[in-house]
Amino acid sequence: MEQKGGLKNRGYSHADVDERRKAVEEFTRTNLESISKFCFDSEKASKNIENMIGAIQIPLGYAGPVLIRGDSAKGEFLIPLATTEGALVASISRGMSVINEGGGARVKVFQDGMTRAPVFKTNGIDHCVQVMEWIDRNIELLSSVVDTTTNHGKLISVESFPAGRNLFIRFTYGTGDAMGMNMATIATEAVCKRIEEHTGAVMVSVSGNMCSDKKPAAINMIKGRGKSVIAEALIPKEIAERRLHASVDSIVETSVRKNLIGSSMSVTLGANAHAANMVAALYIATGQDPAQVVSGSMTTTMCENVEGDLYISVRMPSVEVGTVGGGTSLPAQSEALSIMGCLGNEKARKFAEIVAVTVLAGELSTISAQAAGHLGKAHKELGR
Amino acid sequence: MEQKGGLKNRGYSHADVDERRKAVEEFTRTNLESISKFCFDSEKASKNIENMIGAIQIPLGYAGPVLIRGDSAKGEFLIPLATTEGALVASISRGMSVINEGGGARVKVFQDGMTRAPVFKTNGIDHCVQVMEWIDRNIELLSSVVDTTTNHGKLISVESFPAGRNLFIRFTYGTGDAMGMNMATIATEAVCKRIEEHTGAVMVSVSGNMCSDKKPAAINMIKGRGKSVIAEALIPKEIAERRLHASVDSIVETSVRKNLIGSSMSVTLGANAHAANMVAALYIATGQDPAQVVSGSMTTTMCENVEGDLYISVRMPSVEVGTVGGGTSLPAQSEALSIMGCLGNEKARKFAEIVAVTVLAGELSTISAQAAGHLGKAHKELGR
Amino acid sequence: MEQKGGLKNRGYSHADVDERRKAVEEFTRTNLESISKFCFDSEKASKNIENMIGAIQIPLGYAGPVLIRGDSAKGEFLIPLATTEGALVASISRGMSVINEGGGARVKVFQDGMTRAPVFKTNGIDHCVQVMEWIDRNIELLSSVVDTTTNHGKLISVESFPAGRNLFIRFTYGTGDAMGMNMATIATEAVCKRIEEHTGAVMVSVSGNMCSDKKPAAINMIKGRGKSVIAEALIPKEIAERRLHASVDSIVETSVRKNLIGSSMSVTLGANAHAANMVAALYIATGQDPAQVVSGSMTTTMCENVEGDLYISVRMPSVEVGTVGGGTSLPAQSEALSIMGCLGNEKARKFAEIVAVTVLAGELSTISAQAAGHLGKAHKELGR
Amino acid sequence: MEQKGGLKNRGYSHADVDERRKAVEEFTRTNLESISKFCFDSEKASKNIENMIGAIQIPLGYAGPVLIRGDSAKGEFLIPLATTEGALVASISRGMSVINEGGGARVKVFQDGMTRAPVFKTNGIDHCVQVMEWIDRNIELLSSVVDTTTNHGKLISVESFPAGRNLFIRFTYGTGDAMGMNMATIATEAVCKRIEEHTGAVMVSVSGNMCSDKKPAAINMIKGRGKSVIAEALIPKEIAERRLHASVDSIVETSVRKNLIGSSMSVTLGANAHAANMVAALYIATGQDPAQVVSGSMTTTMCENVEGDLYISVRMPSVEVGTVGGGTSLPAQSEALSIMGCLGNEKARKFAEIVAVTVLAGELSTISAQAAGHLGKAHKELGR
Repeated sequence: MEQKGGLKNRGYSHADVDERRKAVEEFTRTNLESISKFCFDSEKASKNIENMIGAIQIPLGYAGPVLIRGDSAKGEFLIPLATTEGALVASISRGMSVINEGGGARVKVFQDGMTRAPVFKTNGIDHCVQVMEWIDRNIELLSSVVDTTTNHGKLISVESFPAGRNLFIRFTYGTGDAMGMNMATIATEAVCKRIEEHTGAVMVSVSGNMCSDKKPAAINMIKGRGKSVIAEALIPKEIAERRLHASVDSIVETSVRKNLIGSSMSVTLGANAHAANMVAALYIATGQDPAQVVSGSMTTTMCENVEGDLYISVRMPSVEVGTVGGGTSLPAQSEALSIMGCLGNEKARKFAEIVAVTVLAGELSTISAQAAGHLGKAHKELGR
Repeated sequence: MEQKGGLKNRGYSHADVDERRKAVEEFTRTNLESISKFCFDSEKASKNIENMIGAIQIPLGYAGPVLIRGDSAKGEFLIPLATTEGALVASISRGMSVINEGGGARVKVFQDGMTRAPVFKTNGIDHCVQVMEWIDRNIELLSSVVDTTTNHGKLISVESFPAGRNLFIRFTYGTGDAMGMNMATIATEAVCKRIEEHTGAVMVSVSGNMCSDKKPAAINMIKGRGKSVIAEALIPKEIAERRLHASVDSIVETSVRKNLIGSSMSVTLGANAHAANMVAALYIATGQDPAQVVSGSMTTTMCENVEGDLYISVRMPSVEVGTVGGGTSLPAQSEALSIMGCLGNEKARKFAEIVAVTVLAGELSTISAQAAGHLGKAHKELGR
Repeated sequence: MEQKGGLKNRGYSHADVDERRKAVEEFTRTNLESISKFCFDSEKASKNIENMIGAIQIPLGYAGPVLIRGDSAKGEFLIPLATTEGALVASISRGMSVINEGGGARVKVFQDGMTRAPVFKTNGIDHCVQVMEWIDRNIELLSSVVDTTTNHGKLISVESFPAGRNLFIRFTYGTGDAMGMNMATIATEAVCKRIEEHTGAVMVSVSGNMCSDKKPAAINMIKGRGKSVIAEALIPKEIAERRLHASVDSIVETSVRKNLIGSSMSVTLGANAHAANMVAALYIATGQDPAQVVSGSMTTTMCENVEGDLYISVRMPSVEVGTVGGGTSLPAQSEALSIMGCLGNEKARKFAEIVAVTVLAGELSTISAQAAGHLGKAHKELGR
Repeated sequence: MEQKGGLKNRGYSHADVDERRKAVEEFTRTNLESISKFCFDSEKASKNIENMIGAIQIPLGYAGPVLIRGDSAKGEFLIPLATTEGALVASISRGMSVINEGGGARVKVFQDGMTRAPVFKTNGIDHCVQVMEWIDRNIELLSSVVDTTTNHGKLISVESFPAGRNLFIRFTYGTGDAMGMNMATIATEAVCKRIEEHTGAVMVSVSGNMCSDKKPAAINMIKGRGKSVIAEALIPKEIAERRLHASVDSIVETSVRKNLIGSSMSVTLGANAHAANMVAALYIATGQDPAQVVSGSMTTTMCENVEGDLYISVRMPSVEVGTVGGGTSLPAQSEALSIMGCLGNEKARKFAEIVAVTVLAGELSTISAQAAGHLGKAHKELGR
C-alpha cells in the first residue's frame, strides 16, 4: 500500500504507530497518552491489525483454582479473565471454589469441526441436483484440493441445502489447534473454484450464512460449530447451602423459571444466565475472536436435584477457539494461555474444556446468587 | 474480605497486584512479564475487576474518517477499533471511505430504554392478575421507588407476561448516558420488594430472562433494548464499481442470497455479514461490555438498487452502550471515547449512532468483497 | 366470472357442483361418490369456497365433560373434536376427567387484538421518521378511517418498525366476535391509502409479515395475536397417581426434560407436547381457519409440584378464533359451536377459553402417558 | 372399555354413534342434525376417532389443472382442496393457470425420513458417552429390532445430543408410503427398551421434542422431517404482467421486503406469504394430519428476476404426508387422493411433490396480488 505521512501512514513500525497516533491526536484534538503505551512489537502485530495507534489495556484477573476432570484438561487450573465488569471474577471464583468442594468438574468435547458454507447460484432445481451429485462423486478430489491449501486442515464432511436457484453447501473441517475460520475460508474458496469449473454453478459468496460465523444461528445450536462441549458438577446439599446461601430446590427452581421458561418465552437461542460474560472474559484474555462470543452465548444451563444434591451442567454447542494463530501470538495473550498450559499445539480441546468449566462456574454462582436474592447487592458492593 | 498473601491476597494496590501475579507465576510455573505491564491505576480499577494480576493489551487501530449525519453525531469521525483480526480495520476503513464519497451516512436512534425483567412466583392465574392489576394502579408509586435508587434512571414502562405460576414483568428504564444494566437491576430489586410486600408474589430471580441480557433473544430484536438504531448510505453506481470492484446488482444479489435467504434457512436472529466484528472491536476499544456484542450481532443489513445506485442500511435493535460508568473510566478506554468526542454526559446516543455507522461500513465492505469474490484473498494477504 | 360447462363452470348451485364434479371424474377417471355427499346449501357456501365439487367428511367425536372456571366459560362443557388420529379424543377426554376430579380448570383471556402489518417503501430514514410522526399525530383520523370500513372493528394500537427504506407498521384491532383477519386487512388497506396520500410512502404489501398470519413467528409469541390465554389446573397427588399411573415428580420431570430442555435444544417456538393436535381438532370442528393452528401450536406447557400435587398450566399467546364469520356459518360447524354454547355474538372469548382448556387436558394426558411410558401402546391399541 | 348408555357408550356402530349424539344433544340442549349426517362406515373409522357423534363436512373444491414435472408426479393434475376460506381456491387456481402458461412446475423430493427422538435420563456425561458408544457399536442390532416392529419401516440414521443428565437420540426412519409417525414411535419404543437394558439409561419420554412433531422447530427447518421438497416455476414477463397485473420487479420487491425482510424482523421460521393455507386445505382434503400443517408452514418462498422473467421457488423442509394409513382410508379422503392418482402404495413422494407445487401456486398468486395491491379487494369480493 501507499506510504504517506500522518493518517495516511500504512507502516507497522513503532515509529509508524507513533506518527499515526499523533495525527489522530491532531485530527481529534485529543491526548492519547494511555493508548500510546503498549509492550508488544507492533511489527509482529501486523497480521492482527491495520492503522495501529497503540493499545487498549483490559484489566486481567484470575479465578480459581478450579479442579477439572476433562479428557484433556486434568488437574487444578487458574483461569485468566479480562473484564471491566466488577464482581464477575469474584463470582466465577466463588463458583469454582464450590465446584472444588464438590470434587471438581467433569467436562468433554464431544464434537469438533469448523464450518464454511458458500452460496452458489444455479439455474434451478435440476442444476442444484447436478452439483450435489457431482460433489458426492468427487469428495476425494475436493479433499485433495483442501490439502493443497493447508497443512493443518482436513475436510470432514459436506452437506448441501438446495433452495431454488440457491445452493448452500456446508463444509466442515478439522482445523487442528487453530480456531480455523481463515483456514476454512481459504480451503473453501479453492474447493469452490473446482465446483464452479466442473458444474457451471457460480459462487455468489464464500459465506452464505449457513456457516454461520458470528451470528446467533440455530444451525450452530443444532449441528455444532467449532468445539461442542458439555460440562457438569455435583454440589452436595450441605456445600450448596453453606456456600451459596440457597437451598438446592431454590436453585433448581430459579434455573427452571428463569433459564428454561423465561428463555422459551423470550424466544432465546440457548438458555442460561450469563454464559457470554465468561466466554468474553476468557476469549479476550487469550486472544480469541471476541465476536465469537455470540456463538458461545448459545449455552444451555441445566440444574437438577439429584438425591438432595445439586447437579448442574452446561451444553455449549459452539466453542470456536484456537491455541495457535489469531490473537494468541500476542505476548500477554500467550502468557494467559500459558497460565492454563494451553499455549500451542495439541491444546485447543483442552482449552475448550476449560472454557466450558469456567462457564459452568459462572452460571452456578449467578443462578445461586439470584436464588438467594442478592444479585443487585453484589453489583452494588463490588461493581460500582 | 480477608487479606492474606499470594493467591489469597484480595487487595487492589499495585503491590497487591504484583504479589498476586507472582503467586500465579509460581502456581502455574509461568513468566507473566507482558501481563505485568499496565499503565492505569489498579486502585481505580477496583470497581472493574477482582484478583487483578495485570492487563491484556489489545492492539488499537483507527478507521475513517467517516462522515456522519446523525441526530447527535455530526461531522467527520475517526473510529478507534481494538482487534486482533487482521484485515478488519482496513476493511471497515475502506467501507467508510466509500461512504464518504457517497456523501456520508445518515443515522438515527429511534428508541432508547434499558430493561430488566424479574420472574415472580405466584399462586396461579388469579394471583398473577391481582399482581398485574396492582402494578397498573401503582405505576407512580413504583416510579418514585425507582427514583430513590438512582439519580439518572427513570421508569419508562412496565409490561407483564403471565404464565401459570410464573409472572414475568419487563421494566424499561431511561438510564441517561450509562449503559444502565446495574442501575436497572438495583431499581428493579427495590421495586420488586414493594411488589412482594403488597401482593404476596415472590421474586424468584431479578432476571427472568425476558430482559434479556447477553443472550440472543428475539424479544430484543422485536422490542429493542438499549438504543435501537438505523443507519443508511447511498453509494453512487460509479463509486461502487470503481472502489468496490463489484456491480451494484452483484452486491444486492449477495446481500439477498446470503444475508436474507441464508440467514432464514439457518434460522438466525438478524441477517448480516459480520456485524459482531465491528461491535466487538468498538466495544472493547471504549470499555463497553463485550458480552453485549451478542445483542449487537442481531443486526439486519439490507442492500437495494435505487435507480442504479447502491443503497445500504442496517437496523440494530439493541445497541447497549454507555459513555459513563463501567469500563469507560479506564484511561485508554476514555481516550478512545474522546477520539470520537463521546466521553461523558450527553454522549450515549451519539456513540450509539457511531456504532451503527461503523457496522454499516463494515457490512458494506465485506458484502462487496464477497460479491467481488476475494474474501479469502483479503485474509490471506492481510490476516495471516 | 365466465360461466362455462364442466371444469369451467363457476356457478354455486347444487347442479353446478354436480356438473363440476362429474367433469373432475371424467378428467381424472375417478368415482367421487363419497365426495358428492354433503348436507349444506352450496349457495350458502359461496363465500367459503370456489370450484366446489362436494365435501370432505371428518369424523367428529366429543371429549369431556370438562369443568371450566373461566371469565366467560363457566360450567361443564362437552368439546366437539374433528380428527382422524386415533386415541386423540380418548386421550383428551381422559385429561378432562382428571381435571374434573381436581376441581376443574381456571382459564383467562388476558389480551385480545387482531393484527395486520403492511410494509411501506420509503425514501429512507428521514422519510420513515416523517411517516411515523405523521401517524402519531393522526391516530384519530386513522381510527375514523377504520370505522368507515367496519362496524365491529376498532383500532387499538399502532406500532412502527423502521428498517432503511422499509417501514413496517403493525396495526392492532379489536374485532368483536370475528377472528377478524379480513376485517383487519380491509381496514388496513383503507388506512394505508391515507398514509400513502399524506406521506408519499408506498405500500408494497398490505401484509409485511410482521402481522404475522399463519407463520410461526416469535413476534406473536411475544406480543400476542388474537386472544392470548392462560389456563391451569391442580391435580391432587392421589388422583394423578391413580388416574395417570405416574407420580407427580415423574410427570414434572418429563415436562422439564422434554418440553423445556428438548424444545430449547431443537430451537422451537413454544414448549409443549402436542398442542397443535387439540387446536386442529377443535378448529376444524368449529369452522375456524385450520392454517391458524400454526400460531396455536406456539404453546408453553408448564408442570410443577406444588406441595405434592401436580400443577399444570398452558400459555397460548395466539388463539385466533371467531364465533361469527368464516366457516362458522356452515351448519355442522355451527352445531359444533352450539354444543359449547359458543355460537354467535359475545362468544369469542368464551370459545378461546375453551380452546386453552382443551389444550391443557390434552397436554396433561399425553405428558402423563409419556411419563408412564405407554404412548406407543396407546397408539397401537387405539390408533392403528 | 366399559359399555354404558348415552355419554358412556364406547361403541363404534352407527347405532352407538346415534345414541351418543342424542346424549350430547340432551346434555347440551342442542339439535345436531347436520352433524348426524355422514356417509362412511363408523366401524371403519374406529381407528380414527373415539366417542364419535357424527361428522363435520368441509366444502371441497378443486384447483388446476396444473402441469407438474416432478420425479414422481408427471402431467396435469387437478388438486382437491378442503377449505372454508373464500378466495383461496380461486387464488391457487389462478397461480396454477399462470404456472401452466409458463410451462409448468418442476419439483423434487430431495430428502425423506421420519424422525422420533426420545430423551433418556443418564447419570451424567460419562454415562451419556457410554450410551452413545454402545449405540454406535450396535446399530445393526437396533436396525433388526426395528424390523421386528414393522414391515415398512427401516432405520436410516441415529444422532445423539448429550446434555448433562439428558441424552436426546434422534432416530430417522424410512416409512414407505405411510406418514410414519406411529410406526416410528413403536419402533423407537422397542429400540429404547434395548438401550435401557444394555446401558442402564432410563427413557423419560419416547418423544423428547427434538423429533419434533407438530411444533415449529428449527431442527426440522435445518435437518428436514418427512419429505423435504423444492419446487420452481418460470413465468415469462409478458405472462406475469398480463395475468398477474404486476411487473416482475414489483413481485420480486414484494417477496424481498415482505417474505425475507419482514420474516427476519418478526423472527419467523421460514419466509412465505401463506404456505399454511395450501398445506391445510390439501391435508384436510386427503386425510393427512392437520396438526402437521405446523411444519409445512416453515416454507421459504423466493422470487427473482431472471433475464426479465419471474422465477419463483419454494423450499419445504418438512412435508409429513402419507398415502396409506391415518385418515387416508376414509372414503372421501381416499377419493381426494385418487383425483391426483395418489392413493395407496408408491405414491407418497408423488403426493409430496404435488403439495409443494400447490404451495408454489398459492404463493405466486398471493404475492402477486399483494404486489398489485388488491388482496383486500379479493377477500371483499370473494371471501365475505
